Amino acid sequence: MTRRYLLTVAYDGTSYCGWQAQKNGPSVQDTLEDALGRLLGTFTRVTGASRTDAGVHALGQRAHFDADTRIPPDKLPFALNTMLPPDVRVTQGLLVPDTLHARFSVEGKTYTYRIHNAPHASALYRNLTAHVPLTLDDRLMNGAAQVLAGTHDFAAFCAAGGSAKTTVRHISEIGVRRDGERVTLTVTGNAFLYNMVRIIAGTLIDIGHGKLPPECLQAALNSGNRLDLGVTAPACGLELTEVTYPEKLLNATAP
Amino acid sequence: MTRRYLLTVAYDGTSYCGWQAQKNGPSVQDTLEDALGRLLGTFTRVTGASRTDAGVHALGQRAHFDADTRIPPDKLPFALNTMLPPDVRVTQGLLVPDTLHARFSVEGKTYTYRIHNAPHASALYRNLTAHVPLTLDDRLMNGAAQVLAGTHDFAAFCAAGGSAKTTVRHISEIGVRRDGERVTLTVTGNAFLYNMVRIIAGTLIDIGHGKLPPECLQAALNSGNRLDLGVTAPACGLELTEVTYPEKLLNATAP
Repeated sequence: MTRRYLLTVAYDGTSYCGWQAQKNGPSVQDTLEDALGRLLGTFTRVTGASRTDAGVHALGQRAHFDADTRIPPDKLPFALNTMLPPDVRVTQGLLVPDTLHARFSVEGKTYTYRIHNAPHASALYRNLTAHVPLTLDDRLMNGAAQVLAGTHDFAAFCAAGGSAKTTVRHISEIGVRRDGERVTLTVTGNAFLYNMVRIIAGTLIDIGHGKLPPECLQAALNSGNRLDLGVTAPACGLELTEVTYPEKLLNATAP
Repeated sequence: MTRRYLLTVAYDGTSYCGWQAQKNGPSVQDTLEDALGRLLGTFTRVTGASRTDAGVHALGQRAHFDADTRIPPDKLPFALNTMLPPDVRVTQGLLVPDTLHARFSVEGKTYTYRIHNAPHASALYRNLTAHVPLTLDDRLMNGAAQVLAGTHDFAAFCAAGGSAKTTVRHISEIGVRRDGERVTLTVTGNAFLYNMVRIIAGTLIDIGHGKLPPECLQAALNSGNRLDLGVTAPACGLELTEVTYPEKLLNATAP
């Protein structure tokens, strides 16, 4: 009997053209479908929660697929990991109701943006951090970011090419903290516009070294004008950390 | 006039055969000497504080060289980093007295050993952590490790092939702590035998999941027998974090 499975997937996005299958290089989706196809003996489409860009990482991407298999869901990660390259790991497998859709059922997402704030780039974390040599005022950044918490029209925080019907989003939590040379931005929300977190990160970086005033964030919320904000921060600093679904939906008895 | 310079060097050891120049692949030393030779226009030998093994990383390796150059020491990192691959970064340059030798003048070294303690390996930190799927009791490990603090004969903690005249060493601080799925061992001492930190890490891992009793560390100190300890933990988990020199020597007026 065909049933729906939900995977949690971690990946180092450095070598991939992003999550989604594309013509210009291997995607994480391709890589996962290849492993799944070999495991199940038949091509199996996976649907991801989030289409992360080229170079963006994930600790907790989610993806569902439908299959008729006798492999217990909790064994799926072990079986798939033997077939996946080491930069992609499946960390959890769940049997879920057909009504759960990895993308459309998302309740919340958490992104982490990591900055190496030192005169020289990081040798060890060069692919997992963005390098900012100018000293950042992390407290100023954290304070400024709080204006984004809540429900707002984030039209200014969206790259051209986004296809969202509405640009209203809800951010439940946002914070910037420093640990030595590492400055980390964490954002949790119900959904995000195209490049939204990287535009927030790029703007907070500009605020952090005095290139933009902290008030530019409120101005951009009012104006809806992308030009009120800073550059889009590099992909390599971004990680999709967690994707959550309503407990009720996850725990509903699978058919 | 020829003067002595001291560099602090960070590197991701994944792609290198170790610090020291060898025949079986590129070394970090080769890579640094190549960049330095191009910068100064003449081959310049660098002497490292520590000969890290293949796959071992460094945040604070140190190396000295002698050169006649007008480049200010604090500009050396910027100049060298434009010529180095991104997995090697020079983070500091100092003019030091000729009496300071990167290896023989070392006062203390700190190593960090990182373990990804989860059912599946880390996709993002796969080259910077050792994967241990069995749940580790980090408090037990930390408690057991304390017997190593102080001055002891560490003969049992030495791989064959070491050339040390004495196996007595002093560990000033050792600790194991957990942060989620990350278990980290930190050791500071005056000097270390060949593979000593990796043998300590491997033994603490075995203690952490009950394969060896915590008392085996004291037994090995008494017996001097390598067989009383666990396996040598993988190179990829190890980082040379800091190398220190006597302040008096660093601050002596350069000639």
